[in-house]
Amino acid sequence: MTPMVRVQNFTVSSDGYGSGTGQSHERPFGHANPAELMSWAISTAHFPNRAAPGGTYGLDDYIVRDYSTNIGAEIMGRNKFGPQRGPWENHDWQGWWGNEPPFHTPVFVLTHHPRPSFTLSDTTFHFLDASPKDALAQALAAADGKDVRIGGGVATVRQFLDADLIDTMHVAVAPIELGHGEQLWESPEELVDRFHLERVPSPSGVVHHFFWRR
Amino acid sequence: MTPMVRVQNFTVSSDGYGSGTGQSHERPFGHANPAELMSWAISTAHFPNRAAPGGTYGLDDYIVRDYSTNIGAEIMGRNKFGPQRGPWENHDWQGWWGNEPPFHTPVFVLTHHPRPSFTLSDTTFHFLDASPKDALAQALAAADGKDVRIGGGVATVRQFLDADLIDTMHVAVAPIELGHGEQLWESPEELVDRFHLERVPSPSGVVHHFFWRR
Repeated sequence: MTPMVRVQNFTVSSDGYGSGTGQSHERPFGHANPAELMSWAISTAHFPNRAAPGGTYGLDDYIVRDYSTNIGAEIMGRNKFGPQRGPWENHDWQGWWGNEPPFHTPVFVLTHHPRPSFTLSDTTFHFLDASPKDALAQALAAADGKDVRIGGGVATVRQFLDADLIDTMHVAVAPIELGHGEQLWESPEELVDRFHLERVPSPSGVVHHFFWRR
Repeated sequence: MTPMVRVQNFTVSSDGYGSGTGQSHERPFGHANPAELMSWAISTAHFPNRAAPGGTYGLDDYIVRDYSTNIGAEIMGRNKFGPQRGPWENHDWQGWWGNEPPFHTPVFVLTHHPRPSFTLSDTTFHFLDASPKDALAQALAAADGKDVRIGGGVATVRQFLDADLIDTMHVAVAPIELGHGEQLWESPEELVDRFHLERVPSPSGVVHHFFWRR
């Protein structure tokens, strides 16, 4: 199959916010509580950073375990890598993702302030000052025939949507309100002129939204 | 993770039948129409034998494309291989699955009439006269750390359920009645003493039933 550009497991509040305001080193999601936003995924058997055995094997687990299937590279915004703004003070800190990042592929971080690439376990981070289209060309080359994940955050997903570069998108809408922060949409209906939309309520309380190009 | 024993994409009618009566070379599902029973899967983008491009990327497609994920071997009953009963008249016919079988792993066919193994593309068929437990031990060894799929038909799934060898099971219940044939259950409730059960209606009309061990 032709490689696809996919958004996966992107979670927003019922009012459309993917993260809160006030991002800091200690609070990657600002005032939003990621454990609350992501609880649908955290409780599944295949959640990547799952510490203890157990977990569910229902609908949410299918979606969580599809995260790596046929993905060859990810593109993320700088704010998904870390809370720094402007020029890097140094290159010591290597992002929020620990020594075993859950990506297992090349990751392209979009930033106006590139820095040297580095590798943690089987994930290599590259830093690009590039348009969505040019970044995607590099990611597709690195993905070697597999798909490219657009990893977020909200601003990055919006950029790729605006450039009409996304083929399929899965967004989980969590049953919490955030009120302010980074907003993906006011309503998923905004996208139905370009995408098929299938809504599937999960027993966990989130509503899965599956989009694919018309 | 420890290898699991999984039933996947097994489809039954609303009255619990996985196939009809009167299996023959021309009618692998007997009086049941497989295109009707399996239409939820056939319409997805990742259906293995999909001829034309297109297809859906919603809930049903996640489930269809999980079919191969982390599967290292399949066990099937003889009636899923072919319609013959009793001793093989010859070994010329190589099953219903064509020259490019959708399994891509070793497949163990349970039969009281073993015949020599053979390979079609990247699928090798082995024939075993063995108990579920002994067949599973061989399949797990061949799967080399990956999971084993119990591929059906109904009698084979029932055998493995009765021997309590199944860890997770996905059954799609299609909105058609068959009235008679090979029955998996009178009701999925029969299994809830041993399994968690999550029911998820799909926009396609099937109801996905996800079971995992308590």
